[in-house]
Order: sequence, then C-alpha cells, then structure tokens
Amino acid sequence: MRVLYAQSGGVTSVINSSAYGVLDEARKAGLEVYVGIHGVTGILKEKLLKVNDLDLEGLKYTPAGAFGSCRRKMKTQEDISKLFDVIEKHKIEYFFYNGGNDSMDTAWRVHQEAKIRGIPLKVIGIPKTIDNDLPFTDHCPGYGSAAKYVATSVMEATLDLKSMFVDSTRVFIMEIMGRHAGWLVASAGLGWINGIGADMILFPEFPFDKEKFLEKVDEIIRRKGYCSIAVSEGIRYPDGFFVSDMGYTDSFGHRQLGGVGITIAGMIRSELSLKTHVAIPDYLQRSGRHIASKIDIEEAEMAGRRAVQLALDGVSGVMVTIERKSNEPYSVDYGTVELNKVADKTKFLPEEFYNEFEVTEKFIEYAKPLIEGEMPPKFENGLPKYTIFKEVEEQ
Amino acid sequence: MRVLYAQSGGVTSVINSSAYGVLDEARKAGLEVYVGIHGVTGILKEKLLKVNDLDLEGLKYTPAGAFGSCRRKMKTQEDISKLFDVIEKHKIEYFFYNGGNDSMDTAWRVHQEAKIRGIPLKVIGIPKTIDNDLPFTDHCPGYGSAAKYVATSVMEATLDLKSMFVDSTRVFIMEIMGRHAGWLVASAGLGWINGIGADMILFPEFPFDKEKFLEKVDEIIRRKGYCSIAVSEGIRYPDGFFVSDMGYTDSFGHRQLGGVGITIAGMIRSELSLKTHVAIPDYLQRSGRHIASKIDIEEAEMAGRRAVQLALDGVSGVMVTIERKSNEPYSVDYGTVELNKVADKTKFLPEEFYNEFEVTEKFIEYAKPLIEGEMPPKFENGLPKYTIFKEVEEQ
Repeated sequence: MRVLYAQSGGVTSVINSSAYGVLDEARKAGLEVYVGIHGVTGILKEKLLKVNDLDLEGLKYTPAGAFGSCRRKMKTQEDISKLFDVIEKHKIEYFFYNGGNDSMDTAWRVHQEAKIRGIPLKVIGIPKTIDNDLPFTDHCPGYGSAAKYVATSVMEATLDLKSMFVDSTRVFIMEIMGRHAGWLVASAGLGWINGIGADMILFPEFPFDKEKFLEKVDEIIRRKGYCSIAVSEGIRYPDGFFVSDMGYTDSFGHRQLGGVGITIAGMIRSELSLKTHVAIPDYLQRSGRHIASKIDIEEAEMAGRRAVQLALDGVSGVMVTIERKSNEPYSVDYGTVELNKVADKTKFLPEEFYNEFEVTEKFIEYAKPLIEGEMPPKFENGLPKYTIFKEVEEQ
Repeated sequence: MRVLYAQSGGVTSVINSSAYGVLDEARKAGLEVYVGIHGVTGILKEKLLKVNDLDLEGLKYTPAGAFGSCRRKMKTQEDISKLFDVIEKHKIEYFFYNGGNDSMDTAWRVHQEAKIRGIPLKVIGIPKTIDNDLPFTDHCPGYGSAAKYVATSVMEATLDLKSMFVDSTRVFIMEIMGRHAGWLVASAGLGWINGIGADMILFPEFPFDKEKFLEKVDEIIRRKGYCSIAVSEGIRYPDGFFVSDMGYTDSFGHRQLGGVGITIAGMIRSELSLKTHVAIPDYLQRSGRHIASKIDIEEAEMAGRRAVQLALDGVSGVMVTIERKSNEPYSVDYGTVELNKVADKTKFLPEEFYNEFEVTEKFIEYAKPLIEGEMPPKFENGLPKYTIFKEVEEQ
C-alpha cells in the first residue's frame, strides 16, 4: 500500500508539521510512504522520494516546504492523464495534497479522475494558508503562526515609532499579505491585548477612501503624536481597482500587487507632511517559524494525521477541516468538507470582525487562541537549526 | 547626588538593557536617578522622571526606547546653554547619554561645556547602534540582535524561496538597514553556518556594477534555480550616487534612501525576466526583541553598568567600549574612548570581511559570538509582554 504526499501553493511556517503528521501516521500504519518533490510539478516528472527511513522529526521545526512546493494547476485532461500515468505506474493508493484553494481544486480533479478510471485511489486535501481564507473550516493551519508574527512585529515596530516620533518618523506603515481577505492584516490589532498594536488597519474588504484615510491619520497624529498602520496588500479603491497594482499578472493570471505601503506613505508625506517609514515583511511573515504558534503547529500536524486516518477508513474527495468546539478552554475537532466546495473559493473576514479602521472584540476572541504558545526551533550557533533533506536536494 | 540618563538616535532591541544597567547600578549606588524623556529634546523641556521606585526589570525584555529617543543634535551654544539651565537647576552630577555617533557628539559638547563652566558634571556615553559603525569598540550593543534577526529572517525566507522557485518566484531580495557600513547586511551570510543563507550580499562599501550584478544573479539561477539576495539600503553606483535615492533629505541633512530592493528587483525582472519578491523589514530589524541575542542583551546591560562605575570613579568625557579578549571561549572587557574621537565617525566593514558578493570566514568568526544565545521576552496571550511605563506616557 503506497502513499503519496505533496505540498502545493504558497508555503507557511508550519506546512511541514502537516507533512510530519501525514508521513509519520502513514509510516506507523505500515504503509510505503513517498513524497512528490515540488508538488504535482515533480510528480509529473516522477520525482518521488521514499521517506520511510528518513529522520522526519525536524519537519516539526522547519518552515516552508521541505519537499518543495509549486503553483502549477491541473486544468487540462492531458495533465491529469500524465499524473495518472505516474500514480498507476507507482501503484499509489493514497494521495494527500497539502495546499490552499487552488490545490484543493487539483485534489478534486484527481479524485474525480480516479472514480472515472475505477481506481481505488483515496484523495484527501490538507488545508494550508496564511491567508486563512478557505471556507468550511474555522481556520487554516499556517494562519495562527503568521498572525503571531504580524502581531509581534507590529507591537515591536510601534514601540520603535513611539520612541522616535518627537522629531523624526511620525507614521509607520506595515504592508501585510492577503490579497482578498483581511484575516492576516487584522492580526495587527491583536497586540492591544498586551498594550500596544496598530493604530489603524486597512482591510481589503473595505473600500479605500483616500480622504477619510488621511483625515483619520491626521486625527491620530494630533491625539497621540504618532500613528502605526497595517495595510493589506489588497486594498482597493471604491471602483475595485487595487491601490497598488504592479501592472502585470502572474502565471495564475492573478494581478501582481506590491508596494501599497509605499503608495500610502507617499500620500501621507505629500498631503500631511509627515515623515514615514514602511516595512514590507513579504516572505518573512509566512516563513517566520522562529515565532510560530504552538497551537498552530500542533493543529497542522493533527490535520495531517487526520487525513491519513480518513483515507485508511476509505474516505476520499474531502479536505480536513478544523471545527472549534470551545474558546475557554480552547478545543477543536477535525471534520471534513468535499474538495469541490473549497476549490477556488474565498472566505472573507466577516463584517462583525472589523470596523473601517480596526478589529472588533469578536475578532480578538476568534484569533487569540490561534496564536497561543511557543515551540521554537532548536538553536545552534545562535541561529535556528532547520532541516534540509539532502535527498530532496538530489532530486 | 543626581543622575540623568537619556536615550538618543535610532533605537535598538536592547537599548533598554543598557538603560537597565545604568539605572539599576546608579540606584544601587544610592543615587537619585532621573531619565530624560525623548533624549535632549525632553530634557530641554524639563521632562525628567525619577525612576528609583519604578519596577525596571521589564526593560531587559522590551525593545525600542522605553523612555523615548530623539534625533535632535546640540550644535548651537544656545542649545547647550539651555541644557545646562536644566542640568544646574536639577543639580545633575552624572549625565549618561545612550546613542550612536551623533549622540556621542552631543555628549562631548556637554562634557566640554561642563569643563568651561567649572561644573563637576561627569558625562559618559553608552554606545548603541544596529549599524555597528562606531570606531574604537569591537562592536556595539544592538548589533548582535539585529544581526540575529537578519540572519534568521534570511534563512527562513530563503527556505521559502527554495520551496517556490520551480514555477514561481526565482529571486528573493531583502533590503537591510545600514546607510554607509555593511555590518548588518553582512549578517545575511551567517545562516550558512547552519546550512542556508543569502546567495548574494550587496555591501555599501562595494560600488554597485549593474552588469556584473545581473551576470552573477544569472549564474546563480542557472546553477541553483533560485537566488536570495541581501542588499544594503546604502549601495551606490561607482560615481557615489545612491542606487535608491528618494530625492529628499531628513532633518539631519541625511539623504533619505528607500526602495533599493524594489529598484534592483526591477532590474532583474526587466533584464532577466525572473519573478522576484522583495522584503523590506525596516524597523522590524532593529526592534525584533523576540529574537534578540542573549550575548548582546547582557553586553548592553554591562555597558550601562560600566558607565556608572566609571562616572563614580570620576571619569568623564568618554564612551564605554567593548574589547574582545578571546573568541573561544568568547570573552570581553569594557574600555573607554574619548567621546570626540567617536563623534560623527563611521567604522566601515574591513576589507578582509567581504568579497564582492559575500562575507569571508573572518567575518563569520567575528560575528558568530555576537548572535549567541536566546533570552526571549515573557509571552502572555501568545504575544510578548513588553513594558510600557505609564509614567513616561504622562510626561
């Protein structure tokens, strides 16, 4: 009985914990366990690595995709057929795909094709996204850690700004990932639980009104002397146009965004004559394993284990979901949703979670348990000791 | 006997450890201890806060300037005279100024004026800069922690890039602070001790040659498939012009720089047709207390204590220095240098520490001990619990 696991889409600081959960659970069940290198891209080239005898423990402490990820979609029948050539050749019976909504679409197509071909392949999706925008799950593995990174960084940078504002920088802007949904930028408000956070948050769900924005900055500056702002990369003008459209599209046909922090800093400098600083953490926010959430790490692993248990029970065509049972004490169950319901869908930040420029108590209640606990990597020579498999390098 | 301590210049994640060292040492010596709020700016307005009875322990765990900083220089006799009005009115006998080279210039002027006036004021400077560019000291408190932040972040982001490159981003660029000296950007090479770091480093000391740069990126891409780059904000073309000059100057007359990462990403996109990602951590790299170096934290505190001991011994007009005694085991002594020797000077990265696009073994040997050890802040609610003095807020 052969298992194939692969990673797909933008990585997170805990996707490898899901890998660990899948691979360890499958190994313990006595299965032959393979990983596809760089997702379906590697699988199509038969880049499969058997991991039964590898020391996998380090996966729990290592960010990004230890087995490589890809952005490739499987939209054509030709692609799907090629993939099945490999799956059948290598006698794969369980396929686990770990990714976001694009990846769940791929998993759904694989599941459908197996049914058409009458192959007893079990296909399970494992969620992963710092954007937290998959529907039918309370939250997604990867989000809690990115939220913890963003909240911590905004706290620290706001303390810095607060030190400097009397005769230097008055406005600090941090640009946060999340093209369509404001889950991650919202986490910039969490620091207020401990006394300092973003003074303003700009959500992609809320149309950007330049005049109201500048009025609000001005009001905060008059009141406090300084203003820290978290802005989503995906904010749009009321006409739907992104505030910072880079002018080209990526290989998925998504518009490339960037530099919105620099754009709004320019507005503040020219209209309010205030000195600004802009941080764009970019990949740092999704790979910052050194400040990952313990809850998130554990849930990522459990989602992986649950996927294997489901497949062994004969389930196929679903993604593992997280269902919140209670907040105090925080507890969850793991459920399922059909892959096609998740594919290509986006869950936006609910309206009760934000006002124009800030998060609500309801959001804080929702997000607080997800950033709880620390489980830092081992440090050697003053730096994290991350696991890099030479076996993957050689593929 | 009254002590006045204040913070000045761009803050670091451990400047408050120096504050703790000064204030605790002075308090233990039975002195009346005041802090000036926002450096000389607050002192000129008599914003002094007595701290003898405050709980100061949290300073060791809190980034940025807990008592506020400023960028104000004291260049005119009028300013100096106003400052002495406050110093004399409040019967200050010891003045400790914690900052970089601009701040040491201020401290030197205060020391000189005290001599002219025949006042027995002892003035000691305590170094602080993430830029590590003060002369006559092996290194500066603040540097080790910023270096640890940069090295860790580059490791994590490079793992991310390495996951994604097969069909997405091929080049990741991180823009690092350090206008003139390459100490901080050099730390992007430290991750190689643990197996992953920046593939290329662009130093401000090395003239930027666009053609050679693009050739090198192309060579690395052909060899590895991806390329992670750390670039100093201060790189210049051979004619001395900054690669990313923002077109205006700050209140110190320094040219404002920004966006060099975006500039070189544009070169790579247009000339090599590769997808790029750019991170600009900005304030995050100098306020990232959650990943600070234990050695740095301890040395920052010791430098503060040493300043008080010197002043009590009757010394004045000097800055505390760190003298490295040995590397294995790492040990230091604390010395002194006259303030005017430090003022407005810059220590560049020595040539033996770098080649065109990388650091040397000698640099790694130098920097490795400075990032050793962790001493994370306390966490509550999943986030750092930083100290904010309400007494400072009320000033």
